[in-house]
Amino acid sequence: MDYRALLLEGSVQPFLLKARYGIERESQRVTEEGQLVTTNHPKSLGNRKYHPYIQTDFAETQVELITPVCQSIPELFRYLAAIHDVCYRSLDGQEMLWPLSMPPHLPLKEEEIRLAKLDRFEDVLYRRYLAKTYGRRKQMMSGIHFNFEFGDDLLRRLFAQQTEETDYQQFKTKVYLKVTRNYLSHRWFITYLFGASPLSEPNFFVGAAGPKEPVRSLRNSSFGYKNHDDVQVRYDTLPHYLEDLQQMVEDGKLSEEKEFYSAVRLRGGKKVSDLGQVGIQYIELRNLDLNPFATYGISEDQVSFLHLYLLFMLVKEESTDEKAIKKGSLKNNVVSLENPLQESVYQEEARQLFAELKTFLQTTRVEVAKEFLEQIERAIEEPSQTLAGRWYQKAKEQTQAKQAVAIGKTYEQKAWEKPYQLAGFRSMELSTQILLFDAIQKGLAVNVLDEEDQFVQLSADQHIEYVKNANMTSKDTYIAPLLMANKTVTKKVLAQAGFVVPAGGEYVTEEQAFAAYHEFSDHGFVVKPKTTNYGVGISIFKETPDFADFQAAVRLAFAEDDAILIEEFLPGTEYRFFVIDDQVKAIMLRVPANVIGDGQHSIRELVAKKNTDPLRGTNHRAPLEYIQLGEIEELMLKAQGYLPTSIPAEGVTVYLRENSNVSTGGDSIDVTEDLHDDYKQVAVAAVKAIGAVISGIDFIIPDKSQPASNPGAYGIIEANFNPAMHMHVFPYSGTGRRLTMDVLRLLFPERIEPDRN
Amino acid sequence: MDYRALLLEGSVQPFLLKARYGIERESQRVTEEGQLVTTNHPKSLGNRKYHPYIQTDFAETQVELITPVCQSIPELFRYLAAIHDVCYRSLDGQEMLWPLSMPPHLPLKEEEIRLAKLDRFEDVLYRRYLAKTYGRRKQMMSGIHFNFEFGDDLLRRLFAQQTEETDYQQFKTKVYLKVTRNYLSHRWFITYLFGASPLSEPNFFVGAAGPKEPVRSLRNSSFGYKNHDDVQVRYDTLPHYLEDLQQMVEDGKLSEEKEFYSAVRLRGGKKVSDLGQVGIQYIELRNLDLNPFATYGISEDQVSFLHLYLLFMLVKEESTDEKAIKKGSLKNNVVSLENPLQESVYQEEARQLFAELKTFLQTTRVEVAKEFLEQIERAIEEPSQTLAGRWYQKAKEQTQAKQAVAIGKTYEQKAWEKPYQLAGFRSMELSTQILLFDAIQKGLAVNVLDEEDQFVQLSADQHIEYVKNANMTSKDTYIAPLLMANKTVTKKVLAQAGFVVPAGGEYVTEEQAFAAYHEFSDHGFVVKPKTTNYGVGISIFKETPDFADFQAAVRLAFAEDDAILIEEFLPGTEYRFFVIDDQVKAIMLRVPANVIGDGQHSIRELVAKKNTDPLRGTNHRAPLEYIQLGEIEELMLKAQGYLPTSIPAEGVTVYLRENSNVSTGGDSIDVTEDLHDDYKQVAVAAVKAIGAVISGIDFIIPDKSQPASNPGAYGIIEANFNPAMHMHVFPYSGTGRRLTMDVLRLLFPERIEPDRN
Repeated sequence: MDYRALLLEGSVQPFLLKARYGIERESQRVTEEGQLVTTNHPKSLGNRKYHPYIQTDFAETQVELITPVCQSIPELFRYLAAIHDVCYRSLDGQEMLWPLSMPPHLPLKEEEIRLAKLDRFEDVLYRRYLAKTYGRRKQMMSGIHFNFEFGDDLLRRLFAQQTEETDYQQFKTKVYLKVTRNYLSHRWFITYLFGASPLSEPNFFVGAAGPKEPVRSLRNSSFGYKNHDDVQVRYDTLPHYLEDLQQMVEDGKLSEEKEFYSAVRLRGGKKVSDLGQVGIQYIELRNLDLNPFATYGISEDQVSFLHLYLLFMLVKEESTDEKAIKKGSLKNNVVSLENPLQESVYQEEARQLFAELKTFLQTTRVEVAKEFLEQIERAIEEPSQTLAGRWYQKAKEQTQAKQAVAIGKTYEQKAWEKPYQLAGFRSMELSTQILLFDAIQKGLAVNVLDEEDQFVQLSADQHIEYVKNANMTSKDTYIAPLLMANKTVTKKVLAQAGFVVPAGGEYVTEEQAFAAYHEFSDHGFVVKPKTTNYGVGISIFKETPDFADFQAAVRLAFAEDDAILIEEFLPGTEYRFFVIDDQVKAIMLRVPANVIGDGQHSIRELVAKKNTDPLRGTNHRAPLEYIQLGEIEELMLKAQGYLPTSIPAEGVTVYLRENSNVSTGGDSIDVTEDLHDDYKQVAVAAVKAIGAVISGIDFIIPDKSQPASNPGAYGIIEANFNPAMHMHVFPYSGTGRRLTMDVLRLLFPERIEPDRN
Repeated sequence: MDYRALLLEGSVQPFLLKARYGIERESQRVTEEGQLVTTNHPKSLGNRKYHPYIQTDFAETQVELITPVCQSIPELFRYLAAIHDVCYRSLDGQEMLWPLSMPPHLPLKEEEIRLAKLDRFEDVLYRRYLAKTYGRRKQMMSGIHFNFEFGDDLLRRLFAQQTEETDYQQFKTKVYLKVTRNYLSHRWFITYLFGASPLSEPNFFVGAAGPKEPVRSLRNSSFGYKNHDDVQVRYDTLPHYLEDLQQMVEDGKLSEEKEFYSAVRLRGGKKVSDLGQVGIQYIELRNLDLNPFATYGISEDQVSFLHLYLLFMLVKEESTDEKAIKKGSLKNNVVSLENPLQESVYQEEARQLFAELKTFLQTTRVEVAKEFLEQIERAIEEPSQTLAGRWYQKAKEQTQAKQAVAIGKTYEQKAWEKPYQLAGFRSMELSTQILLFDAIQKGLAVNVLDEEDQFVQLSADQHIEYVKNANMTSKDTYIAPLLMANKTVTKKVLAQAGFVVPAGGEYVTEEQAFAAYHEFSDHGFVVKPKTTNYGVGISIFKETPDFADFQAAVRLAFAEDDAILIEEFLPGTEYRFFVIDDQVKAIMLRVPANVIGDGQHSIRELVAKKNTDPLRGTNHRAPLEYIQLGEIEELMLKAQGYLPTSIPAEGVTVYLRENSNVSTGGDSIDVTEDLHDDYKQVAVAAVKAIGAVISGIDFIIPDKSQPASNPGAYGIIEANFNPAMHMHVFPYSGTGRRLTMDVLRLLFPERIEPDRN
């Protein structure tokens, strides 16, 4: 089959780079000194029986991070980043991930290498078998498994262009077999470029000598993690492949088919035996060492390169030599054990392969990262530019272990820098980031259906839930948020149910509103647009304004909406009660932007200092916003007799804003424990009257020491159908309340342990 | 107490006209010939055991229409109009309401007057007692009961201004007692103005002679519906009133307290005996004859006048005569029996009373309908201008019965003119109007919480439901409509669940979209904004466009939204499946605006003719829109070789639009029975996959005779979270589907009988 010609067809071209990807990354948990940990797999990560993202491999210390199948490389790296973030932040504070394929200093006694403590007995048995057959030390090596599938769009179009094969599944299988044969025959090339295990740590080779180090890749060499030499299969047809595998299991050379550790695994269906039915659906590359220079053990460039390389493996003419794969394997062993700073004996062959690859890329006109290709080219010429070469040089500066700890720490610190964000999903709203973090941590399958729209799918087995903005779920009804969105309706419903709401009216013309002046003029009142949610267009008159000011306020409100509300002003402190499933999960007090004097620093300095809080940021991607010192703030200071350069006395609080919104630098203060239960009961009952399950309901309380049943003890001013959650999780002061976990618990009680409060 | 001074206080003034109102209107059901019907109360009106709006009074033929408590006179008349609409359209097609207080020609045999067939035995027993005590004929008179309550805002402010009374409830009771005494003392004045029962019909007076007719008000006279003369109570204090009532029940003068037929009833609590506990909360005027000139038996002007008059009764100095009420009653009897075209003996007293009323209105500066006051003034001078005078003159032209039939028919016809609308709520969306109609018909309590927002509250006893846009309810989840609102998410979810959706992608930049051209260029496709819902910005390319046209389409779509979709074009016919609660309740085919030639008329004439269909209207307040003949339509005609003046051959369909939207004159064709069950099963399953309970889901079906399981048999293009309902209820052709009733059945299964399909 002339795949090269097929790929150049016009109808195929737009789909050349369509593919699906998945990565599994193994890593040893180590202390910050680089010692294998003695702790168990973190409890916070839920149960390994079902966790789709964070598992343990052979040993209890060896985590395996698994991305879902992704439609693009950026998507793949979002998941990789997110899963790493969750993993790091779920580890005991003194632990991190070892960035190398070769394990750290191992215990002298082999039995001190602890097998993964899995629930299923057959999983434990299998590990015991592996320990016996290969030794525990070898199983401690870690790597990257890269799953790759050509886009169905691409394969179907290729299939449509050819006539040799009439069955699509057969065609696909042939495609993958050719890629696999070529990849295996040239396996040494990848080992040369991406091999990254030049040195072993103490106690890896015990009882048997290792090779002379440094090498390019211990893991890919005959000293690595591989089957015994008599394990060999044919790749010419799928039936042969399956037949050989089966034979070896029957002969006892393998305990089961999954013990077959080829550099490429053919995949399709759940088990190897399904392959015969469904054909090859994708392949798994298993010969990639952890790249210590890449935060997640492999870089985006590497993946892009491998994609192009696999496409190239499809078009590249195959050797006529029947033993090409066997020879490739032998060459690979040679390359693996070469000194990483010396030229390979196959350098010339590598040059030719690369030149051919470049020509292929040019003729197919696919866009490629030129810079990385140039790096590859340099590495072919300069062994010191290969991963093994680079790492060995670095290791030489100190010891490999020290370098591994240093680089491992930088990756760990990255995960802790903004502990409220989730890497990979930082463009999403903070509440959604936190929800996704919690979902990944607890082993819910996470699928962002629409990033801009904060729309995610979560699932546990067959149980699927959809969540938008982290708080809109199937547990609430269609009508409850519509009810809350309409302030007039909310007040009517609450009043009907016997709750205290400010008296007031709705007006649709200026004339109507003006005429209502006298109805309100005997006390303070508020004029606001009916549907705006962000405080725009609101005028608060704590005392009766004159008529002209009132008119101005009415016009201001009408500028924002077709209808306005005039409501009596309720004096007191505003509290946000966050209710989930008939429980008050958090109560928050918001305080206007402020600094507290120390008698030494100016207001400007105090602001700058307060802004160093890592919780502060911009654009709602941090739990708090920076305090500004702009025109509004300066006016506010002036009214109090201050300049930005003034030095307030010790202990004096200086407010920079009148409004308490967190979005203008306000402080969020958790006061969940400070309010008496009877207020919480009122909040729960009010949310129930509205028919909501999740709501942020705002109370004005003049004196929280009074019982809620006292006349005038409280007034409810509104209920929010899309209440911010992040400010409760990471408040300025007080206890953080993990509301996102409460939402997940509501949705997946079968997966998330009951709440303790 | 100087109520006049209190009312003039500045703090009181803004609240002077605050009040609450309710009306009960009785009426006999008659044939279109004016004969008492022999049918039972309509079954479609649900059960009288709980119906809040439509009851029967004494006789099975005597309906009683009851408004809820209303906060304003316009609101009162909305309900009155709506309840009348529902009543008329629930009657047997040959029935209507008799517009007079005096009943139509009665059967000669008294027992042929059928008592109301109520479920509760005590209700039947009470009617039997009344029949025995007063005779069935008298009970056949009908009238208006007007419930009136001063605004709490007003009374509280009056209370605050005075010092005589320290208890608010006592204060209120005193207010209502004074109003009642004054009203009763001047009862004759209202009889003079609004009495409207000058003539009886055959068999009303049987066995005993009536007065010489015409009179002003038979009903308010001693020949009317009143207690025996020995039934008298004191109105000086509430305890006296209650004591007297109780005494009369004990003496057997009344069977129970509710048999006390005063012109004013004091109300508070559920039973008369509650009054002592809660005080007087409102009063019920019972001396109003049906006004035959008012569609609903009483006019808004009358109610406004009564309101002012009751306020006046509060301030008017009381007579010192202890017998003032008794005297008022005697005067009333005189006035009732006067010839309606002759001056009253109390004309001068009426003049004085009216002058005093006018002065009161001037000093309090309340705004009043001047014109109606002038009418009243004229009626005082000119007896022929009173209601009785006017009606008697009209009756004289033919017979009273014929005039009553004629005027009754005009009211009936009004209710049938636009049978899809609901009087009183015509400003609301049509679907909501129909839902409210159905709710009122079935006896659900209806409360429009926000008219502009189509937000209503429905209830049955303690069971409350909220509905917006007639289709947004508590039965759907918060997330399902958000999922449907996002076309990308909808498609992903449907595709995941195995349904066929058009292939396509989402793009957020022009460049991305342009680059995708080649992916779609081998078949037809559609370019559309991601979130717009009204067909704006959509380009359909049934065949591959050239690149420039494609670019233009992309820009058009981006003009509407930040993200656009490009989707393969699915050829076939579009069907809207309306799914409620796992059942397809309607399937609709929409056909572009068109006319069918008859070989005689021009297109312009055919359009004009088609537009006479009463189902057509404008602005979504009719089930169909008028067909236009504007620029777009003329262009469309031109493309087919027509002019508006062309005369198409018989049977030829001429399309005036390319798009099939009902909003541009398209026809809605119900095809619910035409599609095979397997398509309906797919629709139900797809809506279930989305998690919706109510959804309008759009299918493209190339050939509906093919099984839905055939490859390419269908594609789902979108699911609508706010699907129009009215077009299904009143389609252009095919069977109407009462979807609104299906929604109510979903919400109130306890009240609405199971669906038959």
